[in-house]
Amino acid sequence: MTSLTLDPDRLLPPDPTRRAVARRLHAAVADLPIISPHGHVPAGWLAHDTPFTDPTSLLLTPDHYATRLLHSHGVDLAHLGVGQGPLSAEASRAAFRTLCAHWSVYRGTPVRYWLQVQFADLFGITVRPSAETADEVYDQIAATLQTPQFRPRALFERFGVEVLATTDDPCDDLADHAFLAADPTFSGRVLPTFRPDRYLEVGVDGWTAHADRLQEVSGTDTSELTGFLDALRQRREHFRAHGAVSADHSHADVRAERLPASEAVELFALARKASLSTTEATALRRHLLWEMARMSSEDGLVMTLHPGVARSHHGPTARTFGADVGADIPLPGDFTRDLQPLLQDFGTDPGFQLVLFTLDETTLSREIAPLAGFYPSVWVGAPWWFLDAPDAIVRHRSAVTETAGFGKTSGFIDDTRAFCSIPARHDMARRLDAAYLSTLVADGRLEEDEALETIVDIVTVNPRKAFRL
Amino acid sequence: MTSLTLDPDRLLPPDPTRRAVARRLHAAVADLPIISPHGHVPAGWLAHDTPFTDPTSLLLTPDHYATRLLHSHGVDLAHLGVGQGPLSAEASRAAFRTLCAHWSVYRGTPVRYWLQVQFADLFGITVRPSAETADEVYDQIAATLQTPQFRPRALFERFGVEVLATTDDPCDDLADHAFLAADPTFSGRVLPTFRPDRYLEVGVDGWTAHADRLQEVSGTDTSELTGFLDALRQRREHFRAHGAVSADHSHADVRAERLPASEAVELFALARKASLSTTEATALRRHLLWEMARMSSEDGLVMTLHPGVARSHHGPTARTFGADVGADIPLPGDFTRDLQPLLQDFGTDPGFQLVLFTLDETTLSREIAPLAGFYPSVWVGAPWWFLDAPDAIVRHRSAVTETAGFGKTSGFIDDTRAFCSIPARHDMARRLDAAYLSTLVADGRLEEDEALETIVDIVTVNPRKAFRL
Amino acid sequence: MTSLTLDPDRLLPPDPTRRAVARRLHAAVADLPIISPHGHVPAGWLAHDTPFTDPTSLLLTPDHYATRLLHSHGVDLAHLGVGQGPLSAEASRAAFRTLCAHWSVYRGTPVRYWLQVQFADLFGITVRPSAETADEVYDQIAATLQTPQFRPRALFERFGVEVLATTDDPCDDLADHAFLAADPTFSGRVLPTFRPDRYLEVGVDGWTAHADRLQEVSGTDTSELTGFLDALRQRREHFRAHGAVSADHSHADVRAERLPASEAVELFALARKASLSTTEATALRRHLLWEMARMSSEDGLVMTLHPGVARSHHGPTARTFGADVGADIPLPGDFTRDLQPLLQDFGTDPGFQLVLFTLDETTLSREIAPLAGFYPSVWVGAPWWFLDAPDAIVRHRSAVTETAGFGKTSGFIDDTRAFCSIPARHDMARRLDAAYLSTLVADGRLEEDEALETIVDIVTVNPRKAFRL
Repeated sequence: MTSLTLDPDRLLPPDPTRRAVARRLHAAVADLPIISPHGHVPAGWLAHDTPFTDPTSLLLTPDHYATRLLHSHGVDLAHLGVGQGPLSAEASRAAFRTLCAHWSVYRGTPVRYWLQVQFADLFGITVRPSAETADEVYDQIAATLQTPQFRPRALFERFGVEVLATTDDPCDDLADHAFLAADPTFSGRVLPTFRPDRYLEVGVDGWTAHADRLQEVSGTDTSELTGFLDALRQRREHFRAHGAVSADHSHADVRAERLPASEAVELFALARKASLSTTEATALRRHLLWEMARMSSEDGLVMTLHPGVARSHHGPTARTFGADVGADIPLPGDFTRDLQPLLQDFGTDPGFQLVLFTLDETTLSREIAPLAGFYPSVWVGAPWWFLDAPDAIVRHRSAVTETAGFGKTSGFIDDTRAFCSIPARHDMARRLDAAYLSTLVADGRLEEDEALETIVDIVTVNPRKAFRL
Repeated sequence: MTSLTLDPDRLLPPDPTRRAVARRLHAAVADLPIISPHGHVPAGWLAHDTPFTDPTSLLLTPDHYATRLLHSHGVDLAHLGVGQGPLSAEASRAAFRTLCAHWSVYRGTPVRYWLQVQFADLFGITVRPSAETADEVYDQIAATLQTPQFRPRALFERFGVEVLATTDDPCDDLADHAFLAADPTFSGRVLPTFRPDRYLEVGVDGWTAHADRLQEVSGTDTSELTGFLDALRQRREHFRAHGAVSADHSHADVRAERLPASEAVELFALARKASLSTTEATALRRHLLWEMARMSSEDGLVMTLHPGVARSHHGPTARTFGADVGADIPLPGDFTRDLQPLLQDFGTDPGFQLVLFTLDETTLSREIAPLAGFYPSVWVGAPWWFLDAPDAIVRHRSAVTETAGFGKTSGFIDDTRAFCSIPARHDMARRLDAAYLSTLVADGRLEEDEALETIVDIVTVNPRKAFRL
Repeated sequence: MTSLTLDPDRLLPPDPTRRAVARRLHAAVADLPIISPHGHVPAGWLAHDTPFTDPTSLLLTPDHYATRLLHSHGVDLAHLGVGQGPLSAEASRAAFRTLCAHWSVYRGTPVRYWLQVQFADLFGITVRPSAETADEVYDQIAATLQTPQFRPRALFERFGVEVLATTDDPCDDLADHAFLAADPTFSGRVLPTFRPDRYLEVGVDGWTAHADRLQEVSGTDTSELTGFLDALRQRREHFRAHGAVSADHSHADVRAERLPASEAVELFALARKASLSTTEATALRRHLLWEMARMSSEDGLVMTLHPGVARSHHGPTARTFGADVGADIPLPGDFTRDLQPLLQDFGTDPGFQLVLFTLDETTLSREIAPLAGFYPSVWVGAPWWFLDAPDAIVRHRSAVTETAGFGKTSGFIDDTRAFCSIPARHDMARRLDAAYLSTLVADGRLEEDEALETIVDIVTVNPRKAFRL
């Protein structure tokens, strides 16, 4: 049976000159607290501190990074528990066996890296996952999950999480967040994030129901545009009162453009009757996104944009298993042209702050870094999703730094619902920043004391500034 | 006179840690047989085993990788024998002198690498090509080509080619393939590939003649759409009966989209009268490509797509010298949107398999790897054409692996008509995979035994799976 | 107080194998003269040899590379002297203090690199810039600027500039260039460059005034197209008579396409009445650019294209501070399709030569290198603007070399108005070419004697050929 080990120098550059520098840089930040200003862990886990049920439901089923690659190798998503509700003990074990038997398909991917760190470091697994060792690994994790040290709050503390932001529907009452804030036995900071996509997607079936629901929750008439905007404004206040620092938006593109007032009112009336054309729906959505920017400039919620994904690319999968199951495929981005109207209006407004994420690496050196290197309001978001991976993270720094420096980058964002992977993810980013900075030191572009200050800033100062924490 | 030598460690990483690992990985695959599932060597060479005539006709004239760069430095293509028919002894020598005198223009290109390996390893040349040494090099190669060991079949065996796929017109009778299969003295596997581009390009002048020819060869009336499709289906069967495993398609884009049945019939009727508008021609071509996908899902021929090239970018050159002379220039690609209709219909169909090639590197991490990392049917093709070069090959692995792993990549594809370069090309890819994997080992992302298994898989298992060999 | 030092091996690869080779390659070109065929230093500085007034006006205010990043960190451009006319002693010192206090924002950027080399090497600064050391650094530079050795002509000689091209308006009388050419005490070669953008942008407000001015200066009636073109032709002759070797063009895209003669005449008449639609203005501009290509093929001025920037992206900044203040943001490029009409007509014309620059890195391997690797007229321009930075320069060589080799690249272009940074910029490019070539040597792709010849060619031969010097 092959053993599972972790190289203490993993991800640091192999040549001795850089490795020595990188080790020192990493050591300086390895144990600093985790600031996680954008992610998808449910606040309820921490509020109720419910024990995790089984290895598969915790580590595999909800993680589309992990399930998609098994699906691409012919495994049925249903077998992995996707869209199946609570798993039986047998189903959980069977799915986990499939994961272990397919351990080789993850070679070279960050999923492999994150799982390996979790298995070795968190669960104390010492054998390499395989068809043969699957049950042993499963049993050991399952047993560990029963212990009090593996309840969500205990892990939260053990992970050293200082701030954790969740992602929430504007109509959410945020009761879990309120409960945590009021709980004297919990000292962590768990913040909601305002995510109004579905309320802005006026052309999507079912939008009117969302608008109705917004009226119900806000107590504000949403039959006309003014009221609808007031309702959103009110919900933003509700979020701010519960600690929210940002509003997150994910549409096909980042265009936000104000319509003439009368036209906006008119299109909204049509939207309420579900009789917008596609072009009109897009125009109104872009107007509403512009209104979100205006509200951000007023209430101070940092605006974050996660654009450019063809969601649920495979219709039949979406119909059977729902959204967010690994069938989202990126699209080319356009930030220079699409953001111009927004940045005309708010780009130098001290109240406004904008963090840009992309899945299209070409936009990094061409558009995002130049924008962040001119506009005081614009920040470069961390490498996101498919790009949250070692080679891509280094490419990201390389594409961005020469134009925007380090000081306009957001710090690491884990963006994950895989709770137990959070330390591995942050540590991965810290190691890679150490590696990148060690290259600058080794080739004489930076002194080591500057590199040291920079990496500490990236971990502590940058996310606080970018997200107004 | 400067000597010509080959570094046994060429293309392996220079630092000692990685080099040691890379050497071991390369050694494990260096002598494995060559599987070449897509290329352009004429089957007739092997069927008739005709000796090669002269160095220029073998190594220079037909290789647009080599001639284009000389053209860009002001050399007339005619002087290189392009479009000139059989070369006189003087013309052959003169062209070869030009190649040697311009040896420096190839520095840093894969043409230099491939020629150097062929010169040193295959032809035993020991002096660096130059104006001064041109005749010596020419004479030595010319003499070697006269020996029985340099007849096509002898080289085929010496190269260790296990499978070689050619690229063929649907109307080809495949007599050469049949001859080889029936020949008890030849044990190699030489397979045809179905390449119907010209029959699908309904908007191009001369298409009706192709449709007529298809009718003649298939014995099926192609005056209406149903018959036309039947004729293509029949030709696919003919190809499958001769061992074909794939159908290759190269159009401006990869969009394949079904038209309503009546509209398709109507447009086809117009096409037969050569009276389609440009828009209609594109719509019908995309419908026909969709039909090709349907046939692939039924008959099991793997569909390969090589899109995104402005063929014969320079009209005057095309008029004088014809196609495929180095004047093709790549275009941006769009796989996410363009493949959606096709993948809705066949993306999870177990009968369907699709290998994607691109000349637009931006599509690798953004589109192709995410598609291959979700759809069971989708495979990442090898770096193609301009990207079949050391730095580009490493960029390709780096762009693809973190999202799609190694297991959904096709293995190396040489795609060449330069027969003698085949071993050098496959060995180059093996060295670079060893280099890439050695980095993963050196920075603790992979154990060496896993890297070893991976590189053996890439060379042996992946192409067999991707091409259903 | 931390000291400021320069690593003599800066930018060379850290591993010993490559570093040794890179050192030898760099040493071979480190002291070769500077050829600067495209830049923005005013000829008047050299003609009048006026002493530089103060550190800020020389090093900070006019350099949008430096000011934009301070602006992105919240510094008002006015405070940096942008658009303020001559600076008072207090304002100059205050701005310089801001620069030093923000020294950390430049970490990892080329601005940091260039300033550090200038500070240490040229001005003999030995302390790291900071809020504390700002006055000391300022005073030392200010004192140095008073010495005769820091007058423009003395620096020109000290820098070893062999050729310096300026960028000039077609209506410029080029008196400064004439003065320098006639001055027996000045032996440098200072050439004008013909930059007619504003005369081709027929859709921009104020164009008619430019056309009027052209008439006045050329003495040729510009009320109709023929005369307008004659006037431009006459000005090109004027430039050639003063030593110009190239004509530079920067529009939104690179499309140049001939209109039918009558349509061109008609659109021009409308332009003269300022009544073109946007579409018509674009069509006419592209026709005029085509005419510029035709003139280049006739008079031999090398055509250089710098496309793809959204100029003055932030309207309010442009209205307050004018153009070229750091608010220009790149756009995606399209060379394959857009250049096709031009290259049909002039691509193989021996009189025509075209150098392509891009801010969209994706076009390098996909379009520009393939074009330069086929068309004798096409050259790959150096990494430009945001891409004139260490990582980007290496990516540029990596993207271009495998398809176009070294011989079709232009050599380094500094494109700067920051006069004192010219040696640092050229040396940076030489170091990075040494680094890139050392990798080819270390992994056996090139012999060291070839690498040596290549780097000398890049510095001496390539710019002379690309710019017909």
